[in-house]
Amino acid sequence: MESKKFILKASCTDAKGIVAELTTKIFHLGGFITSSDQFSDPDTKQFFLRSTFTLDDPQLDTQTLTKELLPIFTKFQMTYHIREEKKRYRLLLLTSKQGHCLADILSRWKRGDLEVDIPAIISNHDVLSDMASWHQIPFYHFPMTPNKELQEAKIEKLIHDLSIDYVILARYMQILSPAFCRKFHGKIINIHHSFLPSFKGANPYLQAYNRGVKVIGATAHFVTEDLDEGPIIAQETIAVTHAHSPLDLTRFGADVESLVLSKAIKYAIEDRLFIDKHKTIVFK
Amino acid sequence: MESKKFILKASCTDAKGIVAELTTKIFHLGGFITSSDQFSDPDTKQFFLRSTFTLDDPQLDTQTLTKELLPIFTKFQMTYHIREEKKRYRLLLLTSKQGHCLADILSRWKRGDLEVDIPAIISNHDVLSDMASWHQIPFYHFPMTPNKELQEAKIEKLIHDLSIDYVILARYMQILSPAFCRKFHGKIINIHHSFLPSFKGANPYLQAYNRGVKVIGATAHFVTEDLDEGPIIAQETIAVTHAHSPLDLTRFGADVESLVLSKAIKYAIEDRLFIDKHKTIVFK
Amino acid sequence: MESKKFILKASCTDAKGIVAELTTKIFHLGGFITSSDQFSDPDTKQFFLRSTFTLDDPQLDTQTLTKELLPIFTKFQMTYHIREEKKRYRLLLLTSKQGHCLADILSRWKRGDLEVDIPAIISNHDVLSDMASWHQIPFYHFPMTPNKELQEAKIEKLIHDLSIDYVILARYMQILSPAFCRKFHGKIINIHHSFLPSFKGANPYLQAYNRGVKVIGATAHFVTEDLDEGPIIAQETIAVTHAHSPLDLTRFGADVESLVLSKAIKYAIEDRLFIDKHKTIVFK
Amino acid sequence: MESKKFILKASCTDAKGIVAELTTKIFHLGGFITSSDQFSDPDTKQFFLRSTFTLDDPQLDTQTLTKELLPIFTKFQMTYHIREEKKRYRLLLLTSKQGHCLADILSRWKRGDLEVDIPAIISNHDVLSDMASWHQIPFYHFPMTPNKELQEAKIEKLIHDLSIDYVILARYMQILSPAFCRKFHGKIINIHHSFLPSFKGANPYLQAYNRGVKVIGATAHFVTEDLDEGPIIAQETIAVTHAHSPLDLTRFGADVESLVLSKAIKYAIEDRLFIDKHKTIVFK
Repeated sequence: MESKKFILKASCTDAKGIVAELTTKIFHLGGFITSSDQFSDPDTKQFFLRSTFTLDDPQLDTQTLTKELLPIFTKFQMTYHIREEKKRYRLLLLTSKQGHCLADILSRWKRGDLEVDIPAIISNHDVLSDMASWHQIPFYHFPMTPNKELQEAKIEKLIHDLSIDYVILARYMQILSPAFCRKFHGKIINIHHSFLPSFKGANPYLQAYNRGVKVIGATAHFVTEDLDEGPIIAQETIAVTHAHSPLDLTRFGADVESLVLSKAIKYAIEDRLFIDKHKTIVFK
Repeated sequence: MESKKFILKASCTDAKGIVAELTTKIFHLGGFITSSDQFSDPDTKQFFLRSTFTLDDPQLDTQTLTKELLPIFTKFQMTYHIREEKKRYRLLLLTSKQGHCLADILSRWKRGDLEVDIPAIISNHDVLSDMASWHQIPFYHFPMTPNKELQEAKIEKLIHDLSIDYVILARYMQILSPAFCRKFHGKIINIHHSFLPSFKGANPYLQAYNRGVKVIGATAHFVTEDLDEGPIIAQETIAVTHAHSPLDLTRFGADVESLVLSKAIKYAIEDRLFIDKHKTIVFK
Repeated sequence: MESKKFILKASCTDAKGIVAELTTKIFHLGGFITSSDQFSDPDTKQFFLRSTFTLDDPQLDTQTLTKELLPIFTKFQMTYHIREEKKRYRLLLLTSKQGHCLADILSRWKRGDLEVDIPAIISNHDVLSDMASWHQIPFYHFPMTPNKELQEAKIEKLIHDLSIDYVILARYMQILSPAFCRKFHGKIINIHHSFLPSFKGANPYLQAYNRGVKVIGATAHFVTEDLDEGPIIAQETIAVTHAHSPLDLTRFGADVESLVLSKAIKYAIEDRLFIDKHKTIVFK
Repeated sequence: MESKKFILKASCTDAKGIVAELTTKIFHLGGFITSSDQFSDPDTKQFFLRSTFTLDDPQLDTQTLTKELLPIFTKFQMTYHIREEKKRYRLLLLTSKQGHCLADILSRWKRGDLEVDIPAIISNHDVLSDMASWHQIPFYHFPMTPNKELQEAKIEKLIHDLSIDYVILARYMQILSPAFCRKFHGKIINIHHSFLPSFKGANPYLQAYNRGVKVIGATAHFVTEDLDEGPIIAQETIAVTHAHSPLDLTRFGADVESLVLSKAIKYAIEDRLFIDKHKTIVFK
């Protein structure tokens, strides 16, 4: 019989002996730790741990494991999360009209490189519905109306009905309400088309062109109430020259956006990602 | 007898036939064009040309060449510059206390990879004088005083006395006066330790650390009155992680700063660089 | 009336006065040169030119332009090519089972970032036919048989019937016959999944894993008789670590392959690409 | 009183409970683990651990710590290494005529970014002696003679007399004897001026130029008997174009070489580096 693989994420105020207690317990449960990363933030005094381990005992599942580790979680007042590796996260994709990020995600998913469930795609426009239907994913067209609350209520209902783990804004060109951002803190990942904090707000490629920068980039970040100020997950840049038009920048940028967003999604679904106040911890 | 190599830079309001006239004239002078780059800025309607060519006629030097081409320069109201390739530019290096950029420039120069003359190094501190003396370059210690004008007057005198072509701010942590910036517009190159326009002003690595960015970078730019707003010449970025301290960022950044500044200097001394309003044209 | 945009490619044994004659002629035809790149290879003594220009005369088309420039082309024994920019190249895509490069090309094409015609996709397998049909591109399933000649004859017929300009091997895992390679020299672009010349031949990611390299990459090149030895068009690399499995390398590599192949296609269809013996000239 | 910082490196055949035992013991000694990395190689079944921790007990030094942990090291038949962080490694630099790597290392060292002792520089040529003397480091000129054994004996004597931890080949253009390589296995780091396994052997930049590659690179690796085949520590590449001459490649390459070698040295002196058969494990 094959052993099960688990991923443990845990964080708490830093203290002595955390790893000793957790690893000893995992050892006593018959666990074989295959990788482990930890980080202690010297500023926030927070401790972060990601461990992967295998277990042979067929009785042990996420629930029983959690129960076994609960005294330690409680002792250190930990935020924790245990997942059996084969259990797939469920992503909700939000998009508008520009399909490059959506196409990239779906392409990875279709060829088996992105191991998640995508039970729905939402857009405030209709133009990308054929991409959804070709991938046999339900597409919801929720147009923007003066009443943003109503539109967000529909999104929220889907999040709950479909047991969504992460909401991915794949070039969803709408600003979510503060209430919505707060409710799903740490659950919404956006791609911004500049290397933040440069060029916040609208049309960053035109801003970059006008400034005459020699690199452009993209930033994946958690969405918070403060527009383009959420914890940064991943960033990349590429070189550009004076000869590139705003359209060139937009096209080159599309590649970077897709790559950076796919990286951020990978970190999230492999449980490599923690929020540490207004920053992220990423165990690559 | 070996042929002479020349580099021609020219720019003007764009018009038909510029290249035809210039290349025909160069052909008639016996020139053999070895490379040519041109760019027409669709926004500013400016034309930029860099051509390299060889001439066998031993009578032709920069002065006679200029005379021959003058009617064309005049006709198109060109800004122009002709240099025989073997003629070296003369750089004045300004620095403060942090020596990594200075060391990098001098190391390239000493091993023959940076083909310029460096008749002087100026600093507002004394700490790097041994580096200058080891390289047998005169070192001028001009401390900051309440009277900035006086200090700048000393710099200006050296620029004139030493026939300086470019002033390189190799981590010179002082802000030059608007008057000085205007007087040497297009002649002063600075290295800023962030990927502008992010993190202008003081201590960009700490700003970057506090924001939790995943890339840091450096920007070489022409110095203008508007601090950190001059035309950008070169930029590069490198990846960093949550585990890097502000000191780590500073150390990694030092490498990027040195590289980016050395690139900008290379562009300048190989006549690859034009100012196009608040941007640069760089023919790599 | 809008002016027409043309792209001229020309190459020949280097000589004095080439650019003067060409640009003077273009000027006399009323042309406005918007960009120009040239390179003289010091080893092969070959001259390469790419110029873009606009013409207002509605009578001038590619044919009449060619006729006007023919005396110069003939005088310098030039290889030349003139294209009106709006005329699209026609690509034939060949693939096998792995769809990431095909999906990437089609995604760019569908969203309008890749301005070409794709009249057909050929595969020796059937698995990617749905991707073709969704993009409404005819799909030809030419399975491999002991008689490779026959299979290549079918490909060749399509090349002719569909007036194909470039054949793109988007992870086509078959080796084309020497005769086929010779016949379409300079017309077939392949993506190899390593940074050549490292890891030629089969399974380069496993080779890279076994060697323990810290970067992997991809190489787009023209196909010649000598397997993996054709002129290199574009290459990129990314960092990997000891923790990455062969599957990880394959997945990361897929991104680099797609990007590098799309760059090579871009250079080809924008007429930026020349073959210079066993190297390429790329005017970016 | 300030607490002491220690770095523990340990490796062994993988087994259950290793981390539990080590971290429990460190906890009982009053240790506070500040970071920890581990990796289990699925191919070689080897386990690798790097932990950093602080200890308040002023009695505990490297020696007593080792004694405390010895039963665990013995039980798991571990290769181990404990260092108090403030204890500096001692590097011996070997070089020939090209000074860019040497200058880069010394520049980092002089400005305090490379926290090691450099008790000697050896060269088979005399040209870089002034660089050594300016940095006040003893310089040994050991010219090559027909009797390589004799020359290596002198190097070996210095390694012992100066208690050298790592030998850095900073463009030392000589091939060390197999016996010497075996004797100092895992202690000699070389920089090769190509992205291995491409362009082994002599003059890789000319090889790269002749092949027409679009990226060049450098590789830092441990030296073994098999020339250019030792475990790779770090690699980087940069883009080049058709317009770059072999001299250009050499100059661009010099920057990459310096950076890659300095990275490899950093990994070594921060105890981030393990040899895992013919690969390396690098905990960044």
